[in-house]
Parts: sequence; C-alpha cells; structure tokens
Amino acid sequence: MSTDTVPPSSAENLPSTAPAATPEQDADERVESRSGYTQPVIDVAELTALLDGKYAEVRNLVRSNLAEHASVLEDAETMSRDDYRERVKDLVVEMAATGQTGMGFPEEYGGGGDIGASIAAFETLAYGDLSVLVKVGVQFGLFGGAILQLGTKPHHDAYLPDLITGKLMGCFAMTETGHGSNVQALGTVATYDVATQEFVVTTTREDARKDYIGNAAKHAEVAVVFAQLEVGGKSEGVHAFVVPIRAKGKPSEGVRIEDDGLKLGLNGVDNGRIWFDGVRIPRENLLNRFADVTPAGVYESNIENPNKRFFTMLGTLIQGRVCVGGGGINAAKVAITIATKYALRRRQFEATRDDQEELLLDYGLHQRRLFPLLARTYALHFMQELVSSSLHDVLSGTQSSDGSDDHGQRELESRAAGTKALGTWHATRTIQECREACGGAGYLAVNRFAALKADTDVFTTFEGDNHVLLQLVAKGLLTDYASDFEDMDQLGMVRFVTNLAVETVIEKTAVHKLLERIKDVLPGGDNWDQEAGLLDPDYQLAMLRFREEHILSGVARRLKRGIDNKMNPGEVFSRVQDHVIAAARAHVERLVLEAFVAKTRDLPDGDLKVALNLLCDLHALCTIEADRAWFMEHGRLSSTRSKAISREIGSLCRKLRPLADDLVDGFAVPAPMLRSPDLLG
Amino acid sequence: MSTDTVPPSSAENLPSTAPAATPEQDADERVESRSGYTQPVIDVAELTALLDGKYAEVRNLVRSNLAEHASVLEDAETMSRDDYRERVKDLVVEMAATGQTGMGFPEEYGGGGDIGASIAAFETLAYGDLSVLVKVGVQFGLFGGAILQLGTKPHHDAYLPDLITGKLMGCFAMTETGHGSNVQALGTVATYDVATQEFVVTTTREDARKDYIGNAAKHAEVAVVFAQLEVGGKSEGVHAFVVPIRAKGKPSEGVRIEDDGLKLGLNGVDNGRIWFDGVRIPRENLLNRFADVTPAGVYESNIENPNKRFFTMLGTLIQGRVCVGGGGINAAKVAITIATKYALRRRQFEATRDDQEELLLDYGLHQRRLFPLLARTYALHFMQELVSSSLHDVLSGTQSSDGSDDHGQRELESRAAGTKALGTWHATRTIQECREACGGAGYLAVNRFAALKADTDVFTTFEGDNHVLLQLVAKGLLTDYASDFEDMDQLGMVRFVTNLAVETVIEKTAVHKLLERIKDVLPGGDNWDQEAGLLDPDYQLAMLRFREEHILSGVARRLKRGIDNKMNPGEVFSRVQDHVIAAARAHVERLVLEAFVAKTRDLPDGDLKVALNLLCDLHALCTIEADRAWFMEHGRLSSTRSKAISREIGSLCRKLRPLADDLVDGFAVPAPMLRSPDLLG
Repeated sequence: MSTDTVPPSSAENLPSTAPAATPEQDADERVESRSGYTQPVIDVAELTALLDGKYAEVRNLVRSNLAEHASVLEDAETMSRDDYRERVKDLVVEMAATGQTGMGFPEEYGGGGDIGASIAAFETLAYGDLSVLVKVGVQFGLFGGAILQLGTKPHHDAYLPDLITGKLMGCFAMTETGHGSNVQALGTVATYDVATQEFVVTTTREDARKDYIGNAAKHAEVAVVFAQLEVGGKSEGVHAFVVPIRAKGKPSEGVRIEDDGLKLGLNGVDNGRIWFDGVRIPRENLLNRFADVTPAGVYESNIENPNKRFFTMLGTLIQGRVCVGGGGINAAKVAITIATKYALRRRQFEATRDDQEELLLDYGLHQRRLFPLLARTYALHFMQELVSSSLHDVLSGTQSSDGSDDHGQRELESRAAGTKALGTWHATRTIQECREACGGAGYLAVNRFAALKADTDVFTTFEGDNHVLLQLVAKGLLTDYASDFEDMDQLGMVRFVTNLAVETVIEKTAVHKLLERIKDVLPGGDNWDQEAGLLDPDYQLAMLRFREEHILSGVARRLKRGIDNKMNPGEVFSRVQDHVIAAARAHVERLVLEAFVAKTRDLPDGDLKVALNLLCDLHALCTIEADRAWFMEHGRLSSTRSKAISREIGSLCRKLRPLADDLVDGFAVPAPMLRSPDLLG
Repeated sequence: MSTDTVPPSSAENLPSTAPAATPEQDADERVESRSGYTQPVIDVAELTALLDGKYAEVRNLVRSNLAEHASVLEDAETMSRDDYRERVKDLVVEMAATGQTGMGFPEEYGGGGDIGASIAAFETLAYGDLSVLVKVGVQFGLFGGAILQLGTKPHHDAYLPDLITGKLMGCFAMTETGHGSNVQALGTVATYDVATQEFVVTTTREDARKDYIGNAAKHAEVAVVFAQLEVGGKSEGVHAFVVPIRAKGKPSEGVRIEDDGLKLGLNGVDNGRIWFDGVRIPRENLLNRFADVTPAGVYESNIENPNKRFFTMLGTLIQGRVCVGGGGINAAKVAITIATKYALRRRQFEATRDDQEELLLDYGLHQRRLFPLLARTYALHFMQELVSSSLHDVLSGTQSSDGSDDHGQRELESRAAGTKALGTWHATRTIQECREACGGAGYLAVNRFAALKADTDVFTTFEGDNHVLLQLVAKGLLTDYASDFEDMDQLGMVRFVTNLAVETVIEKTAVHKLLERIKDVLPGGDNWDQEAGLLDPDYQLAMLRFREEHILSGVARRLKRGIDNKMNPGEVFSRVQDHVIAAARAHVERLVLEAFVAKTRDLPDGDLKVALNLLCDLHALCTIEADRAWFMEHGRLSSTRSKAISREIGSLCRKLRPLADDLVDGFAVPAPMLRSPDLLG
C-alpha cells in the first residue's frame, strides 16, 4: 500500500458542488462525483499472485536467484568486458544448477519437463542483468532448443545432459552478415561427401560469414549451423548441423572466429563471426528430425514440400520469440516501477500549495505519460501469459510428433510473432519515457535506465525483426481467408504477398468474404457503437475488431487492384506495405485487449477487479485514442465521441493515481534489481 | 549524385497506361503520371552551401578538425573512463587553439566576436564524439557564457583569456540534486559577511548539493555557483558567484567533490557533485552585471523586481539551449545519413525480380520510416538557423545593455526553448528509428548508433527539461495576449499558469481576443481549406496556424472555467497541462514549417528548389497527418481529405526515393564520422 497522503488531484478532492459546466465539457467530472465510485484498496500479494499465475513458484525461485546475485548489475559497469563476460557465463552456470534454466528440457536429461515454467523463469530473469538473460536464451533456448527440437534421440543423448548444466556451451549460427531476415537465402553450404560419409561445411562468400552469433566469440564449443544442404549436386534447402567450433579455447580446424566487438548493450554476451573453410563433420551431425541423408547419399524427408519443410523447422524455434517478447515486457516493468516510485517521491514547483512543492505524479501530464504505459504493460503481460500457455500446450502435445502443421500451430506462430513485436517496441518506448520522466538522475548508470535502454534495444531486431514479424502475422491473416498454404516459406512474406496472396486470396473472392465479415463485427447493429458506453468492453473490443477486419480487407482490395492494373507485383507490395503492417498491428492489438478483458472478467468481484478494470479501460481507450484518426476516417467515431474518449482517459488517470504504487508493486521486482538509490531514496 | 539505378518504385516506372482507378483511390498515381513531373538533379555542393549558410567557413574548419581527430570515436570505446576523459579534455584544448570554440567571445580577449559563428561551430561539432561537444558546451558555453554574460569587466579580464584557451577549466554549478527545473528553489546559500567583505557559500541540506555538474569531477578549477544571496539577514534570491573549487587537482578547502560515476552516455565528460561547507570568497566574486553588494553590505540592482532580475539573469544563458537544440538536430543528421546509405546498399528478399533481392529503400515501408524523418531534419535545420541568427542579433545588439527585457528577447527565449525541445526529441526518435532500420548491424558500436543513442539521450533533459521548456513557450503565448509580465519567474510556469494566467489573462478577456483571431487564420474564408491544394504552402501553414490558435484559446477557456468553478488552481493546471503542452508544440511546429517554407520560397527556380519543395511538402503533410485526428475533431479535415493526405505522402516518398542519397550527402558529414564499415561497405 502507498503511504502517500491522498493527492490533490484525486477524485475525492473535487469541489463538492457540481460545477455549472457545459454538458460536453465536464461530463467526466460529473460522472466522477455522481457515480458513487469508491476507491479500491489493492492487496498487493493478491495482485502478484494473479500476475505470477500458475508459475509463482518458479518465478520466486528466479527472484531469489536474482537478488542473491544482484552484484552483477554493478559488475556490468565496473568490470572489463572480458571479466564481465566470464562473470555472466559463471552466473549462467550457477543459475543452471538451481534448475531455473532447464525447465523446458525433458526430465530424463535433467530438465524440468515443463515448457511453461521455462518461459516463466526466463521472463522473470529479465528483471535483472540482461546479458545474463540473453546468454541463458542463447545457450538453453536457441542452442538447446535446436538440439531438442530439430535433433533426434542420439543428439539428445549426446548433448542435452551437458548443455543443460552449462558444461557444454553452444551457439546458434543462423544469421549471416548478408542475410538476417531472409534465412532461405543463406550462403553457408554443407555438401555431403558420400566417400567419407561426412558433410563439408563452407562459407561460400564473404557476406555468408555467420554474424552476431551469441556465445560464439568466446564460450561456445559447438554450433548449430544453418546451411544449404547439397546432396549429389542437388540443393535441398536450409538444414541445421552440429559443428564443433572450438576446443580448449581454440577454434577448431577450418573454423575462423572473430569477435563482434563492443555493442550498444549486452556486452556480457560474446557475440562473434564464424567462417567455415571446408569443415568436415560426420553424417550423424545433421539434426535429422525432419530430414536425413542416408549413408549412400540419398536425401529423405517425411515432408515432401521443401518450403513446408523449412517452415516446419523454423516453426519449432518459436520458443525464442515468446521468450524475447516476455523479456521485453518484464524489462518494461522494471522501468515503470522505478519511474512511478520516483514520481511519488520527487517534488518540483509549488503548484497547489505555497509551502510545499508538488509530487510529480500529481501533475496531470505526468500521469498521462506514465499510466497508459503501465496499463499497456499489464495488457501485454496477460497476452504473453496466453501465448506462453498456448506454446506450452502445443509443444507438450506435439513434441514427439512429425511436426505436421495445423491451424493451432500457425495461430501460435502468428501470436508469438505479434506479441514479440508489440512487447519489445513497448519496452523501448516505456524505458525511454521513464528515463526522461526521471530527469538527469535517470541518466546515471546506477539508476538502471542506462542498462535497460542499451540492453533491450536489440530486442526489436533479434529473433525476427519486428516489421518482418508483423508481415508474418499479416500473412497468417490473409491465408486464413483463402486456403491452407502450409508449404509457404515462413519468412518470405514479400514473395507471398506479391504472388500467392494476389493470385489465390483474391481469386477466391476472399475480399468479398472479408467485407461481409465486417458487417458482423458490431454486436448491436450498424450504429450501436455511437451510443455504447465508452467503458463497455464489448464496445472497446468491437472497435478493435472492426478496425482489424477493415484494414485487412483494404489490403486485399489494394493488392487486387494493383494486379488488375498490371503493375509489377513487387511495386504493388511496396505500396501496400504500410497497410500490411497496420493490419497485423490491428490484429495483435485486438488480441491483447481481448486477453486483458478476459482476465478481468474472470476475476471475482472485489477491489482487485475494480482496480484492474480501471487499468483495462485505460488501455482500451488509449489504444482507440492512439488511432482515433483512423476511426474517424472510417465513420466509427464522431469528433464529439473522440473528444469524450480523451476526457475519459484523463478521468481514469486521476482514479488510478492513488493506486499507482500498489500497481507497480504487484510486479514484485526484487528491490536490489531496482537499484536507483538517487531515485527511490 | 547517387549511382544507383532507378528503383522500381520510382515514379517513372508506373504503368504507362493509366489504370482504371476509382477517383479517390488512385488520385496520387494519376497526378504522378499526368503532371509531367521531371525528376530534379541535385547539385550536392550547392545544397551543402545552402545548408551551411553564411557560416560555411567555420563549419568546414570544424569538419576538418573532426576528421583530423576522428580516432576519438574509437578511443571512446577502447579507453578506460579516466583516459577517455583526459583524451576529451586534451581534444577540447586542441580545438580551442584553432579558434573554433572561442568564436562567441569578444575579440579583445582572444575570441572571434561572432555569436552566430560560435553556434555554427558547436552544431557542426555534433557530427563527432558528443563528449567533446558537451565538454565544449560546458567550458565555453555555460562556464564561459556565465562569466561573459553575468560578469563585468573585472571578471572578463580575470577569466576570459585563460578560459578561452582552455587553460582555465571551469564548471557551471546550477542544478542541485533536489532542484533541476525549479531553479528559484535552490538550497545553496551565499551569505555576505560584512566584517571580512566576503561571501560564505554553504550547502544547507543534503539535497542542495550541486549535482550532474559537467567538468566538476575532475577538471574544473573554478565554478560559477548559483546560490541564494543573503545580505544583512535578507534573502535576495538566486545569484551567481565565482568559487574556486580545485587547485593542483585537489578540492579547495571547504569543498567536497564526488564523481557522478558511470552515465548512460557522455562518459568522456566528468560530471560530479559539489558540497560547500562555509567556503569564503571575496565580495568581488559575485558576478555583478545585474546586481551587486556594496562593501558595507547594501544590496543594489538596476532591476527592482526580484523575479524580473532572476529571469534576466537566466535569459542571458539562452545560448546553451540554442546550442543543444542544434547539437541534437546535427546528431540526427549523422543517423539519417547512415541509415539512408545502408538502405541504398542492403538488399533483402526478392520482391520485384527473381534474380536479385530488393534494396531496402525500395520498400514503401522503409521510405515511410526514413523520409519523414529526413524531411523533418531539414525543417528543424532551417528553424535552428533562424533561431541562432536571431540570437546573434539580440546578443550582439544588447551585449553591453542592462539586459532589459523586450518582446524580441522573450520571443527569442520562447523559440530557443521550443526548438531545443523539438530538436532533441527529434534526435532521440530519429536515432532510434535509424538504429532499428539498420538491424543487428546497427547494434555494433563501430556502426555509430551506440554512441549516438547513449550520448544524445540526455539532450531532452539538460539545459531545461523539454516538457518544462514547452510550458515556458506556452507561458509566452499566453502573456502575449495579456500584458507584459517581465517580472515573472521564468521557470515557475506552474505558478504562473495557476495564478497570473488565470487571474490576469482571463480577466482581460484575452479569450475573446483569441477566438476572434482564429477566424482570421484561414486566408480564403471559412471553407477555403477544404478545397485548397494539399501542396499549397498557404494551406499547410493555415492548418497549423488554426490548430495553434484553437488549442491556445482552449487552454485559456479551460483555465477560466476551472477558476470560475472554484477549483484549486493547482488542480486546474494539472488537468489542463497536456493542453498547455499541446499549445506550445503546435506553436513551434507552425514556426518550423514557416521557416522551411520561407527558405524554399526564397530559392531561385531550379532543381534544388524542386527537390526541397518535395521535402517541405512531405514535412508539412506528415505534420498534419500526425495530428489529423485533431483536425478532424475540429472540423478542419474531412475523412476523404485526410486519406488523400496519407496517399500524397506515399507519392512524395516515391518521388524522393531517387534523391535520397544526395539529400543526405548535402549534410556533408565527414566520412570518418560515419564509421560504419559494416553498413556503408
């Protein structure tokens, strides 16, 4: 509970006599004073329990591990880069010993056998040093995940026990200097040599060197290398191979490694470049869950279509995206906690009284800067909970299957991509706003924003560039209207939209289907939305659904028009690309709000429900407000109603003001993770 | 000139037969093909000459100094913090020897006697290492500026010659831990001791320690200290004193200094904290241009009103804000240059052809991400040119005056504050977007974004928090409608709005005056704006003028209503605060567009004018588009027209695509300042 006295701008301090306001202008104030609203009292422990969900235990394990090793936050600033890297590695191994990093691996190899727990652990780790987080992600998520998901029992037996303990360090060598997003165009080649029953791995051109590979510069002994498989002179597309790259600290024969050098952040992780010069590995080092090469040099796969095969392989690595999204959201929690608590302590300028300066959080502008970000952090948290729970179900259910695709799998991939994009952009934005809201003090490294800002910056890029991911989401939306395209290249969205989407989606008159669906979106008929209450979640959701359907049908229409006009498909795509992104974004925003609404609806009546409803309303209305131009352009918002939304947001902020301290305490960021002696005093 | 082949998305490659488009949907495409638009050819040298303006020579001096010392960019990454600080200090002294840092001081002391040149030099320095920039700003702008502007001939004689060469290092000790924005509430006290004719400087409480003071931790021997002057038991408000703080590397007696430690960026600058424990300085150390204390202990000032006196003193330090704004804008130029050139080299995904991947800059989305930022960089550059030219005139004209206030001075302060706020936020946003647009490569320190992002981050805070500055701008707007309030506390905006603005502005029926003015804003009558051409600068400017006037009158109306309703003035302010900020922002946005329009209008007909008109149109329409919801809410934009603006922006982006390389080359950022071997190849 906050110990602050009730601030002057809270609802109770309104003048007791209703002002003679015009109907439009002061509607919010009258509602406040007439509605008999009672300020809820939040039980912080209850709130934390709600946020932690079913994985409270593992989250608390991570919290205490973080607190125990809190000194790494300072080490990051004082140690040399080399020492810091070693410190981070040692810490990863120590944490592995507590079981927190191996939750997602099968129990028979020493893991916890619970994917959901492994994501909860990872997310919570984002409260601390983010080099530790990313090193854990590289070692257990990417490297370990590739062995687990792309390999078969011999690989599991050979690598999992030692990688789970951190004894065997590995890396995930997919990205090349020349190709990050377009993985199908990688230039590394693995040629099968039938004479020796080996693959020969080669970097075929300079920009095909592996680049930005975490763990590569220093610690990895083994790499999972993605390369074009060539068998008998035929290219079979990108596959993954286990390649030893280092022994006793020295690069293996034929392997050249270079340090990527200083980075904007995450300098506790040793990123590097790798070149392969005819490196020979045994045939068995192909991770052969989805495809194999016989000793005689015959390529075999259960998945006939090469695109679908590639797509299936990448699909198994979805966990990384879910983790990064959760990491971003939790890093934002640290920032918003610090900024909120600072604003509850810092005073500047006498505003309401002559004898005391005003708390920052009692300024309307400051509430407007922080509370929408706080509300969105909650919203994304609940979305992330849904995505990771769905990942848990899909991976637990299909772990031993042949990876055959289905609607659930594609939906999960889309949601993981969308939540990663929105969650990491939210982190960038929130951390920036919170730094500025803490003024000059926010610029000192000891006050946490330096590391938060630098370390999270690349979250919007790695595990899939956010813009590319949103195009992936849009692809899913378009294919849902046409037929199944399981054989599509997952990341080759550009070609998809320019070819298949145009030829198939539109020929099947999906556009018409789309337009019909829009009419069904509004639950109470065509003009219902003009009269529904702003705080009615059905109204809020209907608005976001309408937007999603409308933008999507617009994309399809524009594609069709371009092709009808005989324009170059690439140019059609270029022109419609911002609408493609907008469609994806609208889709994910709708899902996020649905997650928040569902969560609050399920709560038992009580103060916590009242408080979270305020936050949920604030998030919903801010989401509509941010795109209110679109809603007005498309006849779904009158200018009067649009202004009413902005006023309602101000009113919600004032109601949330007395709850702010408890709402950030609910995240339960361990105190040593906040540091900030200057800000929190 | 760009050597790229004409991209597929440029205007020329449109289908030669006009498509059978609906009137609304494809209006832009038809205009493009029918208008006979000829792509201009840019003479880069001519463009650079235009941007450099009358100070081309000094800008080129700085460019060559930067190139000569380019290794500091790498030193910033490889050196220890201590060594880097020394390196930066040495570099500042070396640059001082070339004359570039002393342009703003009188010639008789070894300066250049040209304020405008000094700002041009400072801005250009922002192409390089920003610790060097900020150290220069602290030494010559803040410390030197305070001696020059607040001191009199004895101070000039005593300090200017050595500070101009960098032999005497100083700092500017205004901010305290407890007070950054609210300078009038500083807790440091200087008491006059008539017996010894000395001032006794004391830190009266812990949060009154000076904090974040550049140059303080290591190099400054002298500080200009802002403290509450007490004479004969009476407090006379904040004044500035010269206090020796360090000799031969050791703190002076009674002075305690602490290092602020690692910061988010700018680690080549030694920021620190200072405590004073009864430090005695001679009476003559009061910087006495505006007020003095006689030996007998009588306080004297030509400016009777204490608020006006304080305001006048701070007003003389305006140069710092102009410099920081220019620094931010020029740092943005570095980022946009790198991102644009990378996008002209980097290919990803086959889009228009099967045999070659597409250049990033040929994607519509990528153009949409970068070009509005490029256009805004130009717009802010021209605004900054106006502000610094106006500063030059005011300071050159009034340097020896008594600092009496006038409309021109207040207007300059307002414009400096607004340009600083918009310029530094633009830097933060542009650098972030450009980093993301360069993907993982953008995350490597060698590719410049790490330093740009970290070092500029605090620009939005120092020399006045941007939100506080915009409130200062708003104050100026409101006072313009009422009467002169030269005696207002400059930074005490909150109290101003809650007291004077409400009581005076409104009582004088300024609201009515405001509402009348709005009607005069549209040049062609009430509905003219619905039919004017989108590319008509008069239309664009009228839109921004209308918005400015309307928001401003709304603020006044809301203030009045609150007071009429007997609400607490602090609460009234809290509720109207976001409108106050919006009014200020709308005002500055209008000025920025006016600056850009005026610049392009003055150009002789020719290709350069055509090119800059495209940029200016893009900037204007993006500014309207960003707030199109507001324009629709207030009846100044139909939804049809709003959508037309978005389409026109797409069309302008396609026209600018072939010009992009030249447009960034025009900034003439020296190649060694770009570094980025991975990005620029």
